[in-house]
Amino acid sequence: MTHHVRVALAQINPTLGDLEGNSQKIIQNIREAETAGADVVIFPELTLTGYPPEDLLLKRKFLADTRIQLEQIAKANQEIMAVVGFVDQQQDKLYNAAAILQQGQVAAVYHKICLPNYSVFDEKRYFTPGDRPLVFEWQDIKFGLNICEDIWIPNGVTESQAFRGGAEIVLNLSASPYYMDKRKERLAIGMTRARVTRSIVVYVNLVGGQDELVFDGDSFIVDHRGEIVAESQQFREDLVIADLEVSVVRKFREDDPSFRLFKREFQPPYQLNFISLERPKATREKPPIKTTPLAPLTHLEEIYQALTLGVKDYVTKNGFQKVVIGLSGGIDSALTACIAADALGAENVIGVLMPSEFTSAQSIKDAQDLAKNLGIRTETIPIQKPFKSYLETLREVFAGRPADVTEENLQARIRGNILMALSNKFGWLVLTTGNKSETSVGYCTLYGDMAGGFAVIKDVPKTLVYKLSHHKNEMAKRVVIPVSTLERAPTAELRPGQQDQDSLPPYEILDAILEELVEKDKSVKEIIEQGYPREVVKEVARLVDSNEYKRRQAPPGIKISHKAFGKDRRMPITNRYRT
Amino acid sequence: MTHHVRVALAQINPTLGDLEGNSQKIIQNIREAETAGADVVIFPELTLTGYPPEDLLLKRKFLADTRIQLEQIAKANQEIMAVVGFVDQQQDKLYNAAAILQQGQVAAVYHKICLPNYSVFDEKRYFTPGDRPLVFEWQDIKFGLNICEDIWIPNGVTESQAFRGGAEIVLNLSASPYYMDKRKERLAIGMTRARVTRSIVVYVNLVGGQDELVFDGDSFIVDHRGEIVAESQQFREDLVIADLEVSVVRKFREDDPSFRLFKREFQPPYQLNFISLERPKATREKPPIKTTPLAPLTHLEEIYQALTLGVKDYVTKNGFQKVVIGLSGGIDSALTACIAADALGAENVIGVLMPSEFTSAQSIKDAQDLAKNLGIRTETIPIQKPFKSYLETLREVFAGRPADVTEENLQARIRGNILMALSNKFGWLVLTTGNKSETSVGYCTLYGDMAGGFAVIKDVPKTLVYKLSHHKNEMAKRVVIPVSTLERAPTAELRPGQQDQDSLPPYEILDAILEELVEKDKSVKEIIEQGYPREVVKEVARLVDSNEYKRRQAPPGIKISHKAFGKDRRMPITNRYRT
Repeated sequence: MTHHVRVALAQINPTLGDLEGNSQKIIQNIREAETAGADVVIFPELTLTGYPPEDLLLKRKFLADTRIQLEQIAKANQEIMAVVGFVDQQQDKLYNAAAILQQGQVAAVYHKICLPNYSVFDEKRYFTPGDRPLVFEWQDIKFGLNICEDIWIPNGVTESQAFRGGAEIVLNLSASPYYMDKRKERLAIGMTRARVTRSIVVYVNLVGGQDELVFDGDSFIVDHRGEIVAESQQFREDLVIADLEVSVVRKFREDDPSFRLFKREFQPPYQLNFISLERPKATREKPPIKTTPLAPLTHLEEIYQALTLGVKDYVTKNGFQKVVIGLSGGIDSALTACIAADALGAENVIGVLMPSEFTSAQSIKDAQDLAKNLGIRTETIPIQKPFKSYLETLREVFAGRPADVTEENLQARIRGNILMALSNKFGWLVLTTGNKSETSVGYCTLYGDMAGGFAVIKDVPKTLVYKLSHHKNEMAKRVVIPVSTLERAPTAELRPGQQDQDSLPPYEILDAILEELVEKDKSVKEIIEQGYPREVVKEVARLVDSNEYKRRQAPPGIKISHKAFGKDRRMPITNRYRT
Repeated sequence: MTHHVRVALAQINPTLGDLEGNSQKIIQNIREAETAGADVVIFPELTLTGYPPEDLLLKRKFLADTRIQLEQIAKANQEIMAVVGFVDQQQDKLYNAAAILQQGQVAAVYHKICLPNYSVFDEKRYFTPGDRPLVFEWQDIKFGLNICEDIWIPNGVTESQAFRGGAEIVLNLSASPYYMDKRKERLAIGMTRARVTRSIVVYVNLVGGQDELVFDGDSFIVDHRGEIVAESQQFREDLVIADLEVSVVRKFREDDPSFRLFKREFQPPYQLNFISLERPKATREKPPIKTTPLAPLTHLEEIYQALTLGVKDYVTKNGFQKVVIGLSGGIDSALTACIAADALGAENVIGVLMPSEFTSAQSIKDAQDLAKNLGIRTETIPIQKPFKSYLETLREVFAGRPADVTEENLQARIRGNILMALSNKFGWLVLTTGNKSETSVGYCTLYGDMAGGFAVIKDVPKTLVYKLSHHKNEMAKRVVIPVSTLERAPTAELRPGQQDQDSLPPYEILDAILEELVEKDKSVKEIIEQGYPREVVKEVARLVDSNEYKRRQAPPGIKISHKAFGKDRRMPITNRYRT
């Protein structure tokens, strides 16, 4: 009888809806875990389908096909225990579920209890909540098994498992999407649950990009004292192996008055489901594995890698190889091109210069320098002729009207059309280059610079665009983004001498106001009370409110903030309320 | 002591977020109900905010402002009882609520129990469910009060109110969005609940357009035998007044063995909240009011009016007066123009002809005839010059490549740009003309014919476009949509001799397959088993799956089917599953 278990955390990157491919990937990871001598291998939440499957869950055949693949995985798993996230159908109800696979069979199934239905989450649209926290005994060790949100809610599932079910190791399967510094929040939750319940928390998160979301992985094990035992890499697939020794937990609990107190006072909100599982095979003697915590990424590098993975997965999972980007010589397109080159390789990025009569020589030089520094191919396609031809075509109907934003938008739309024509002709995906600041206030042209398949830095405020650009150059240890691009005043170059700051407040102020308005849902009054100028705040709020229609037709982009546009912030277009 | 009550059903059209305007409208309807001698006036679900308020509900100030307006309404209501839908905040919880207003005060508040979270609904994102069905006694009459979904769930709120609380009249406040023939479903629910519980059901629904949704009103009163006592008009504001006599209900219940049986056997899932309210004033003697059921609209007229109201409210509530539509001479743009002219007046619709070298003389004539028949202004803006100029501009980069869909899309995008330029210059809203069939299979150009603010017939399959067009001519008792438009084979005219049927199956077959695939979520296999040709079904399914990215950037349009694209059908873009 041993109190030792070797666990494998299979932090994998499934592709949404690719049930067969995901199944193969799961089986392959089971084999690797076996080879590494693991007793148990744990996969993330809904690994088999990918997360979030959205309305695919309303298709009966999708559910049936998922079950078929689960049975295939079960059959392929004879040697060890595997815990796999899948969707379980029981009569007309669906559950966000975890299957325990052993000896070629599905030995048990757990149904997620806490279903998130806020922010980007819609789990109550599909799933029925489970109501029985699961504890399973395996050999002489007691495991609690739960899924994502289950571990975030205090005095709930985890405490029931540890205090009432006696769980010594808590396995959590997650599909927890990235936003900046979320790693710290997750670790804090894992540490708190581990310390309160004096159990070892094994947290396995999904990795990979799915439309607006990036899952950053960052799986971890925290011991009963709240200390990190092992941690996986962020933003890539990983298989972390660790040896866990439960006798230490038992000894610690016996001597710990706070554990006894918490246990005694805990009022369990649920009844438990307790099962015993046979140990499939006697484990071989194996040399112990040493794990050490990793050095975390810096704040900026973490964001940069999130954007890189988001681009890579959107492009490749949608079957594209190459991307095309309009290069203006400005910082937004420069950063976007850097991210794309890092995600896909410089040979898969085409930069297109589309100068007009308003484009400065410096802008052209900056765009060319960037392309040279990155090693990407460029095309130069001037837009004067189509612009002139539109003006002629519209001369009669516009007769007597002065030039205004119409003519500016026309130029942006010609560029959008050219990029889309290249996309149609050569099969390249268009990446758009708009940042969160301009997306917020509508300082962008629908069907113009907003035209494209994926909006890489849509959730990155302009001030952060600058920081990430400097960071890129620092990481590269050379000038990739030209100094002139970093230092010149930003301009859309749609009329002579135009600068962003003619139309918008300085970006430091704009971004600070936007964070209060958009991310924190503060009112104009509250923001003015913080000391921002009244008229500026009112105008920014008006612009945010009145540009919802543009954002509704924007391409998807990567969420990196607490509240991104898209599924995360669901505002009506028709809306007379003024914040 | 009387057992008689005069009720007023205030079927109003609030504007989302216009708390002050909605408040004024509510007070005005209270005054009209008073003048008509009503004892009680009932408003729809969330009348005060408009439905659905979406993430406005996450703004604290919005909630506070709602409360302020509710208090204003309460203060203005001294004479009669008013029941108003609003959002109620209690600590950090929100409730979808109904306030009973009397004698200048909020006398009681009910919290909706059944929260829909499927289809277009996201109520669990915001609201906590109530758990106490409300019965209030007023004079000698017992009323049950519930909200929308509450009355749809059998053996639930309504039965608890009638069987346990003794409710004789059940008031239901609804915001029930339109889809075709939903009127019959609602009446059937009302009749069933009324017959089972032997109570009078007073159902008050919202009217008006809100982004993708149209609320059709169609409020009604059904008596204890399940017979319609009164019904409001569909698709317009209405104030229905009816006299209800409760002594008949009491007598009927005493003699009805099924009522006694149902009452005895009913297991109430909730505990009741029972309150008594004073009657504010002795009601004057007043001559009785006679109500008679209305003749319902025909199937096609109902859909036509839904589209008309949807356009009218989207355009006017967003502050536009005029709309611009590209007229191709085809049936989609013809129907769209008819709807717009009926919604806004012919003087507010501008038709734009944008012929190319591939446009036939007949198409131009058909577009001109339609405009003349409708009495709308037209502009003719040929696209050959910009097209030629794009081809020259792209000649070098496209060298050696044959013409393909790229050149077709370019033409569509030039037209999109011209319409947007007119929109920018003159402040006209662009209405797009794509139907559901082409939206489903992606037979449309992103940023081209998909460019615009509102997609009027986005949820109307092509076969229904034909039916509605014939219907329009029949209702007008003259040819509005030219016979040639109705009879010629549909074509995009983007290359010589092109016809839709070169690329797509016949529309009768396509629409039938799409209904199975999109609305019923059937699998390819199931549809083939129904007798449709294998290769056609597979190709249609492939097109539907692979064009999600286009639909994600489409403008909003009016839901008229059981499942529309948009909030109603939430599919991932990145998705390897093949239906």
